[in-house]
Amino acid sequence: MRFKFPLMAIGLEVVMIVLFALFVQYETSVNTSRNPNETESAAMDVEKTMESYPFFQDVHIMVFAGFGFLMTFLWKYGFSGVGINLLIAALGLQWGTIIQGIFRSHGQKFLIEMKNMIHADFSTVTVLISFGAVLGKTSPVQMLIMTILEITVYAANEYLVFKILWASDTGESMTIHAFGAYFGLAVAGILYRSGLKEKHPNEESVYHSDLFAMIGSLFLWIFWPSFNSATADEAKKQYRAIVNTYFSLAASVVTAACSSLLERGKLNMVHIQNATLAGGVAVGTCADMEIPPYCAMIIGSIAGAVSVFGFKFLTPLFTTKLRIHDTCGVHNLHGLPGVIGGLAGIITVALEESDSTKTVSQAAALGSSIATALVGGLITGS
Amino acid sequence: MRFKFPLMAIGLEVVMIVLFALFVQYETSVNTSRNPNETESAAMDVEKTMESYPFFQDVHIMVFAGFGFLMTFLWKYGFSGVGINLLIAALGLQWGTIIQGIFRSHGQKFLIEMKNMIHADFSTVTVLISFGAVLGKTSPVQMLIMTILEITVYAANEYLVFKILWASDTGESMTIHAFGAYFGLAVAGILYRSGLKEKHPNEESVYHSDLFAMIGSLFLWIFWPSFNSATADEAKKQYRAIVNTYFSLAASVVTAACSSLLERGKLNMVHIQNATLAGGVAVGTCADMEIPPYCAMIIGSIAGAVSVFGFKFLTPLFTTKLRIHDTCGVHNLHGLPGVIGGLAGIITVALEESDSTKTVSQAAALGSSIATALVGGLITGS
Amino acid sequence: MRFKFPLMAIGLEVVMIVLFALFVQYETSVNTSRNPNETESAAMDVEKTMESYPFFQDVHIMVFAGFGFLMTFLWKYGFSGVGINLLIAALGLQWGTIIQGIFRSHGQKFLIEMKNMIHADFSTVTVLISFGAVLGKTSPVQMLIMTILEITVYAANEYLVFKILWASDTGESMTIHAFGAYFGLAVAGILYRSGLKEKHPNEESVYHSDLFAMIGSLFLWIFWPSFNSATADEAKKQYRAIVNTYFSLAASVVTAACSSLLERGKLNMVHIQNATLAGGVAVGTCADMEIPPYCAMIIGSIAGAVSVFGFKFLTPLFTTKLRIHDTCGVHNLHGLPGVIGGLAGIITVALEESDSTKTVSQAAALGSSIATALVGGLITGS
Repeated sequence: MRFKFPLMAIGLEVVMIVLFALFVQYETSVNTSRNPNETESAAMDVEKTMESYPFFQDVHIMVFAGFGFLMTFLWKYGFSGVGINLLIAALGLQWGTIIQGIFRSHGQKFLIEMKNMIHADFSTVTVLISFGAVLGKTSPVQMLIMTILEITVYAANEYLVFKILWASDTGESMTIHAFGAYFGLAVAGILYRSGLKEKHPNEESVYHSDLFAMIGSLFLWIFWPSFNSATADEAKKQYRAIVNTYFSLAASVVTAACSSLLERGKLNMVHIQNATLAGGVAVGTCADMEIPPYCAMIIGSIAGAVSVFGFKFLTPLFTTKLRIHDTCGVHNLHGLPGVIGGLAGIITVALEESDSTKTVSQAAALGSSIATALVGGLITGS
Repeated sequence: MRFKFPLMAIGLEVVMIVLFALFVQYETSVNTSRNPNETESAAMDVEKTMESYPFFQDVHIMVFAGFGFLMTFLWKYGFSGVGINLLIAALGLQWGTIIQGIFRSHGQKFLIEMKNMIHADFSTVTVLISFGAVLGKTSPVQMLIMTILEITVYAANEYLVFKILWASDTGESMTIHAFGAYFGLAVAGILYRSGLKEKHPNEESVYHSDLFAMIGSLFLWIFWPSFNSATADEAKKQYRAIVNTYFSLAASVVTAACSSLLERGKLNMVHIQNATLAGGVAVGTCADMEIPPYCAMIIGSIAGAVSVFGFKFLTPLFTTKLRIHDTCGVHNLHGLPGVIGGLAGIITVALEESDSTKTVSQAAALGSSIATALVGGLITGS
Repeated sequence: MRFKFPLMAIGLEVVMIVLFALFVQYETSVNTSRNPNETESAAMDVEKTMESYPFFQDVHIMVFAGFGFLMTFLWKYGFSGVGINLLIAALGLQWGTIIQGIFRSHGQKFLIEMKNMIHADFSTVTVLISFGAVLGKTSPVQMLIMTILEITVYAANEYLVFKILWASDTGESMTIHAFGAYFGLAVAGILYRSGLKEKHPNEESVYHSDLFAMIGSLFLWIFWPSFNSATADEAKKQYRAIVNTYFSLAASVVTAACSSLLERGKLNMVHIQNATLAGGVAVGTCADMEIPPYCAMIIGSIAGAVSVFGFKFLTPLFTTKLRIHDTCGVHNLHGLPGVIGGLAGIITVALEESDSTKTVSQAAALGSSIATALVGGLITGS
């Protein structure tokens, strides 16, 4: 048993290296010399792809420092939280690069661009979200397996949403956030043990574990505009995604203050840390669309308030009635705001576009993201 | 009473959303289609404004992570420090966007550019500095009111300094740092209670609260070159502001070591954390001017030393004689170095420019920043 | 004695300011007006040099936040670790700017460009690495002296490697990492006291000191692609260095899991924190060469595994047999992976280039980096 985890990790790494040798290449003088006419255009691509590098770095901070430290708020799991987060993300980004590349190239060799690296980081986010629901209930070996399975399902759903339905989801509210949350909840439902009904002492946060978690929250909050705009395909959309996300986040912080209405005048910091991020999740789908900034603020405000009410009323209900124990409350931070984001996207497209098939696509994308997540999660958990 | 804070926060958010609906827009196909001739130039603007995005992100880190964690060094207030910091900044950036925009557009609708977002973040810095002086003496409701009032006064003074006096203050040593410090001290003077004379046990820092505060210090230190150069209007000035700030900060770290002269050979970490930043504040006004790097280092060295001496001798004097209790010692980190920055700006302009009206403008800008801060602070405190 | 440290620091700062006044300038209207024909090209340079600014910022974060917090894992030295780290780096970047500039300009005045600032930050990294080997064995005064001496030797070796041998070492695996580690080990060997053989209680890490160190590890990990690509001189090489470093780091995280093979199924977090970074060090020399990504992953995997085995078996052996006490185990994080990087560079150049003198240059660069480090370290320690 004690050898299982390291041997499995090393085995997976060997598989990744072999897959990279088979499928991944980048533009070198060797392959450009084969097609000499393309040399110049290939050089152009490098300049172009490098423009996304600052966005990649911002997303990279969110994945490794943001999500990592967000997991530290449970004192007992703090350290393993941040360590396992690193391991999952490092494995996941390799597998994400492979599986997304194979889907897009239809099984051919493919080139690595900066956007592939951003998408690979995105694919790990789904697992990190699900990890928040199952934290403390799984072994490292189970996490390795879940990483591989979840990213595979994610890549399939992402291909369906973006390349078959041609739906719009720039900040991936549906395909990452709602998907990751419902996948994790399905797994948590399978792993439910009756002992989880009572609040476990390990689930307590202590004063400075909260401060470490705040590092995670703040870095996520700060870089969310980059997350929602990183894959936008023209400058105008990117700019719009940044502005909308910035104001949506600011609005959700202020409405998160309604936490103190429910907590006898005190600010519950777990509410604040999560509700402040809900605005970024909820505005994701329509961030690059032509919604005026005040609409982004309304979306953010609703998401912040819904998230707080979810923590107070829904999470306990899930544990007692549905027998789903959601360790970090990912349903309130990612699940509900992801669904709000999906709905906001449907409404915006319905109002903006005369072509109603686009609206249907958006709705299908939301449905597909939740359905594949639940089915995938149930299978993975079993 | 326990409903006052959340209801006020939500009420303010509703007001912000209404004001955004009335005044804020961004360039969309709807308004570009109205003036079809401008389509191309509008597209250019988006490219141009996106060039400031990395600088915006750096400033954004300083505001939310830098100032947030700097506030954690008082153990008792650590958590509420970083939480209230987030709330103030999120509300402040919305109000700052509105009020600065209205000043500049003379009450018309205005477009959001990346520089507006940087200026909105800047406007929150004044409140965060003042917050350092009143930490532990105010309720969250009072902080919400102070945020709205201080940013209004700041925007008025900023308009006066930059659009009427046409003074130069690229890193806003005078308009942000000196302004924020004296505003906060004026409020702290009004809120003085005799019990503050004895060192309060909550004011003690403990070992790891100091380490959390160090996170704040370091991120402020690292990104200060971006802060001082973010709003420079041409590449040459931006480059100069970066170089000067980098070396000024390095010099102030080394001279901050004189702390150990005053503390029987020990390094007092509160001194170090603050003095190291004084170099960034003090070089702000003339960072983009043609001062040779060694002059920037001299300015940084002086600021570092003055800040240490201020902590040792001035802060206790303020509490006992002037009955002003400056919780975080913002006078030493922002007030004095801000004034040094203003004076350095006056001297540089006097030496560089033959036109003496420019020198008078600089002096007027310094005077106006301190005067509006004191008057605004006294009114707000009452 | 208690005055020695602050007086020395202030004295060194005065020397730096004088040297800056003598040697350092930047492009101003004064010197461009002297050669009016060059005005336009000089303006071009500013645009060009500003392109490196985001890379500079990423490296800057690594130096000050990354290395700073990495040093906090020893509870007792946590705070002085991060404080002295700041002081060394601030002094070192000034001295590095001067000494590197003088070497490159052959004693003439020189202009500051963004790349000079990146190289100055790089030069401080050697001292920060060596600091990890001697932490707890030196006084602040000794650290100031070591900073000046080590950066001088580093600049000489760097000039030899890049300007005389014309070897390739884009991420400076040899010239920074191997150099810094062996320099530090040589100094630690001189400073050996028999009391160090028993594990000192101050050397224990505690739960949250590990979490602070994790902040350092993660920020180093996140920004390592920028470190290895910051000084690459064309976009294609920069892109390649980023991709290779990204995947090498990911691979070293997964193989670092073999730590639990050696520790009865437990993950030793000191192993993980260091082994995860070894991939970045080891791929440094050949990061910008045309190695396929799977080779980068193999290099990273080997480095991760070697680093873990080094911590387990080599570090205790060094203390008992060689009488070298390596406080933070820098040999495993920087020394061995640096040598692996140098060897990988030699092999890659031998395979890619028909000209065998290039291979000899690479080998000479590795030899020179280790030899100057050992000699320099022995002299400095004495």
